[in-house]
Amino acid sequence: MSVRIARNSGFCFGVKRAIRLAMETSREHESIVTLGPIIHNPQMVDKLKAEGIESVDHPDEIRGRTTIIRSHGLPKDELSVLEKLKVKIIDATCPYVSKTQQYGFQLSRENYTVIILGNADHPEVIALKSFIDGEVIIVKNAGELEQRQYSKIGVICQTTQNIENLRELVVKLLDLSNEVRVINTICNATSIRQESTLELARKSDVMIVIGGRNSSNTKMLAEISQQYVETWPIETAEELSPEWFEGKTDIGITAGASTPDWIILDVYNKINKVIGDSEADITRIEDIPGYKEEGNVF
Amino acid sequence: MSVRIARNSGFCFGVKRAIRLAMETSREHESIVTLGPIIHNPQMVDKLKAEGIESVDHPDEIRGRTTIIRSHGLPKDELSVLEKLKVKIIDATCPYVSKTQQYGFQLSRENYTVIILGNADHPEVIALKSFIDGEVIIVKNAGELEQRQYSKIGVICQTTQNIENLRELVVKLLDLSNEVRVINTICNATSIRQESTLELARKSDVMIVIGGRNSSNTKMLAEISQQYVETWPIETAEELSPEWFEGKTDIGITAGASTPDWIILDVYNKINKVIGDSEADITRIEDIPGYKEEGNVF
Repeated sequence: MSVRIARNSGFCFGVKRAIRLAMETSREHESIVTLGPIIHNPQMVDKLKAEGIESVDHPDEIRGRTTIIRSHGLPKDELSVLEKLKVKIIDATCPYVSKTQQYGFQLSRENYTVIILGNADHPEVIALKSFIDGEVIIVKNAGELEQRQYSKIGVICQTTQNIENLRELVVKLLDLSNEVRVINTICNATSIRQESTLELARKSDVMIVIGGRNSSNTKMLAEISQQYVETWPIETAEELSPEWFEGKTDIGITAGASTPDWIILDVYNKINKVIGDSEADITRIEDIPGYKEEGNVF
Repeated sequence: MSVRIARNSGFCFGVKRAIRLAMETSREHESIVTLGPIIHNPQMVDKLKAEGIESVDHPDEIRGRTTIIRSHGLPKDELSVLEKLKVKIIDATCPYVSKTQQYGFQLSRENYTVIILGNADHPEVIALKSFIDGEVIIVKNAGELEQRQYSKIGVICQTTQNIENLRELVVKLLDLSNEVRVINTICNATSIRQESTLELARKSDVMIVIGGRNSSNTKMLAEISQQYVETWPIETAEELSPEWFEGKTDIGITAGASTPDWIILDVYNKINKVIGDSEADITRIEDIPGYKEEGNVF
């Protein structure tokens, strides 16, 4: 019996950076807020609240406090409101998200119809859309695309999209336009986490996917995993159920880019306890490359 | 038993235009030449020769005569040689081929690595390549692509390429570069002929594909057809063999974009003679939409 953690899982560069910026700011300022949750992990957001970093949903609730822009970025109109409030602003937008916003702006400036592959309700996509001046179409997948002819199409992606979705979209677009300019803004960390999850799912007989229920990249990991094996998405170790592991020999764990290491460790330890087999061939958590560095983030 | 002609086959816009320009020029000038065959159909080239339009292979053979630039275009250095010869030049380059050359130039100016999907030995591709300043890679299909990372990729196609080849190439490129800008320069006439051929091949039990052996688009039609049914590529009616039709009930005919109507008619009539069944349910050649107009070209 083995419990393995996906080679690449947990906090990505953008999330680490956002949390670090928030922590540094909280040391310098008495009271700070984030407009919207800084990352899509409720447990982490609660932990930050305990450090005096409050997540508010509306600019009215800021009340003069230093404000951190969440990792997903903010729409242009909300940024204007913030500027008018004359509060100190710390921009924790993931640099890859900012880059995607610049690409969207540039494509619309060059008269492309911009297609965003992503979830229209997700804060990253809502913010991204606001930076595009011309026609913009948001689709979750190729199936949602309207069958009509377009002049010039520019494609960008929510950074947490699945590359297979992008491939299918682009193939379809080749029939609908003579020019298709694809800027693959799927974050490298996303692709790597998806590949690691797929790799581990293939050799496991049950997979635990840890991450916020509102986390887009975590949902993608679960979707990929369940194509291969029985998959249980959870937010914390409390949700684990012993019967998931009955008769299983290869247990895989993966975690979204906004899942802190202490939750992964919790889950790992609880699963080992449930299995209760000290003779088991368990991959040691400390052996996961890069784990120690990631373990120090918070 | 039926003999059907593909809904769209034979001369395309660019070929018609080139032949018309050559004929008009030959009426105004005593002796004219084309540098390289004006289109890839030896029978048509012979017919033009009888009208005083000679195809020469080297600028030395021009000897002061008015020169027609072939439908596939000419490489930049050959154009310079022509200019130095100070002969009268008539440009019969297909406008869609010229457009592809402009796209290639533009992409290289914008620092894209240009990938041409096409046959490196084909005169259209040789000419196209000469208009690109930076790095240029020519591949016949996705399989020929070197597995390495590229910065920005611009894709253009030989106008007679197969869309399925382009789809496969683009999907592969999405893994090799963050920006893939595809300008689908596959000519609409090419796509339409391919679709008509596919449609007819599906309901035939033998297909005859008429066109020059050096004609790229004709070769593509044969490739598409033989995926579905027994297929015989020919240049003229003389090559037809009665045994191809033994036991067959649905005979399909298609023809490349450089195949003149008189050859198609010849083939059609000979097949009907071979079958020798006056009771047969033969699709009347005059019924093919657009046939009469095309029949008047030469």
